[in-house]
Amino acid sequence: MTRIAIAGYGNLGRGVETAVARCADMALTAVFTRRDPSGVKINTPGVPVLKLDDAGTMADKIDVMIICGGSATDLPVLTPMLAEKFCVIDSFDTHADIPKHFAKVDAAAKAGGKLALISAGWDPGLFSLMRVYSSSVLPDGSDYTFWGRGVSQGHSDAVRRIPGVADAKQYTVPVPEALDAVRSGSAPQLTTRQKHTRVCYVVPEEGADLAAIETAIKTMPNYFADYDTTVNFITAEELKRDHSAMPHGGFVIRTGKTSADNGHVMEFRLQLDSNPEFTSSVLIACARAVHRLSAKGETGCRTMLDIPPALLSPLSPEELRSHLL
Amino acid sequence: MTRIAIAGYGNLGRGVETAVARCADMALTAVFTRRDPSGVKINTPGVPVLKLDDAGTMADKIDVMIICGGSATDLPVLTPMLAEKFCVIDSFDTHADIPKHFAKVDAAAKAGGKLALISAGWDPGLFSLMRVYSSSVLPDGSDYTFWGRGVSQGHSDAVRRIPGVADAKQYTVPVPEALDAVRSGSAPQLTTRQKHTRVCYVVPEEGADLAAIETAIKTMPNYFADYDTTVNFITAEELKRDHSAMPHGGFVIRTGKTSADNGHVMEFRLQLDSNPEFTSSVLIACARAVHRLSAKGETGCRTMLDIPPALLSPLSPEELRSHLL
Repeated sequence: MTRIAIAGYGNLGRGVETAVARCADMALTAVFTRRDPSGVKINTPGVPVLKLDDAGTMADKIDVMIICGGSATDLPVLTPMLAEKFCVIDSFDTHADIPKHFAKVDAAAKAGGKLALISAGWDPGLFSLMRVYSSSVLPDGSDYTFWGRGVSQGHSDAVRRIPGVADAKQYTVPVPEALDAVRSGSAPQLTTRQKHTRVCYVVPEEGADLAAIETAIKTMPNYFADYDTTVNFITAEELKRDHSAMPHGGFVIRTGKTSADNGHVMEFRLQLDSNPEFTSSVLIACARAVHRLSAKGETGCRTMLDIPPALLSPLSPEELRSHLL
Repeated sequence: MTRIAIAGYGNLGRGVETAVARCADMALTAVFTRRDPSGVKINTPGVPVLKLDDAGTMADKIDVMIICGGSATDLPVLTPMLAEKFCVIDSFDTHADIPKHFAKVDAAAKAGGKLALISAGWDPGLFSLMRVYSSSVLPDGSDYTFWGRGVSQGHSDAVRRIPGVADAKQYTVPVPEALDAVRSGSAPQLTTRQKHTRVCYVVPEEGADLAAIETAIKTMPNYFADYDTTVNFITAEELKRDHSAMPHGGFVIRTGKTSADNGHVMEFRLQLDSNPEFTSSVLIACARAVHRLSAKGETGCRTMLDIPPALLSPLSPEELRSHLL
């Protein structure tokens, strides 16, 4: 049995709670929050909600702490802090800052004799695994990652900050022709614009200048200027009815040659109804592995690239060899 | 540098030779054969071809021996025999016999203080990895493996044994409607006939009874009787021109739910121009991992399910975290 604690009870934390309930070998021990615990209602009966500052008092009842926070400001502070006292897992997804985050968490975990795993999820996470497997098997090749169709939280937030916008959702959409070109094995050079389009659903404030909003979105540097973007104005009711879900997914495709005549395609695809629920399910599988490796005495920081796949499964090595190998 | 030896120089052995040449961190040290070495011409200049019985004399020049033989009779004998003296890898693919083979190789490798990895390739191998990752992440779901479009050696051989057949190739083909049904998330129960069709290209002997051949194929138990099979009679020239390649591939798809409303699809697809060349490339990546783990003192038998993905890559852990995570 792996005893799980959740630090941070937002979309991801709720997803972890749901995922734990679906695993016979897992139990939720506590939920920690930086808010007032009395205002946080969770779905699992009998599990205490406590202040994060008091987490240390529960240390002997927790095998793995899953830190459910944002990569911008929460995780860079929380993960190194908690890694000294607990085995921890996070979903840190600012790719460029992973080496720095890894170093800090590694030092903290080693200092405390604990094991940590960062950047779990699907990208970074399962997509990273596919990039490593496919580039290891086909060294003479090219790989491509496409995201979507799915909601980008960061881009949705950027649209919401534009004057005159009451609410908004942004979808990232892979370009079908680009996917086909990649799958053909021609190893195309693709620009940002050729790989993805962006589709926005915007609820304007009363009397807002729609043309000005559309221009502000389409010319926004980094977020939209390099993409073909479509802006749809809708009502608050339509946004709620049609765009409340958090779907996502994408593709990792590698094509490569093993000889002059012979080319190969390796493709991995995710199509997710709920990004936070799926990400939570990956975190929980990683928690199982971290618990097992920690029990063997391993310490320091890991990523999914370091984890033997068998350790993610509730099945024994013998069962895996008999039924899944 | 990982020094590789090849035991058995058929299609797979030649593929390993090609794959080694494409890896800057690998070198081919020797090729071993049970035939008369003077009759075996390899493509790598300066590499000796030796009798397999003399392999022991080269032990200090070999980091990993890749055993390229058939699963029916070669590997059950060769892998346990060689695992006592060498770190070995094989592509044993008789799924039902894997536990027995594993036990024998594990005992031999431990006795000799060596590390072995069995059942490397794509199924078993990469497809097994996908089954483990996807079932670990989506415990409440169903998975499906489809093979093809590709040449099945076993089924081609079975057709060739029919009286009146001069030569033949058999393709296994996934049924598109079955793939679509699986991807829909409806978790359909599919019969053997609903998942795959079989397509045969047969060169009849002069004056053979074509109707009798077709009936013999379509009613053959285990191999064809449970499938919708198409038989095409062609000339020897056509078979050589159009069916000399060894393409293969397939799909591993898991669909599952994380809550009442939210379902997910995880799909992995391979499309291979050359089954032996691709399989060889997987074996070589595994050799890199076995060499690294053996250098750390690990012994006994492993499968790809036990191997941390990062160890398959020529890149360092730091490079992987910076560029592929």
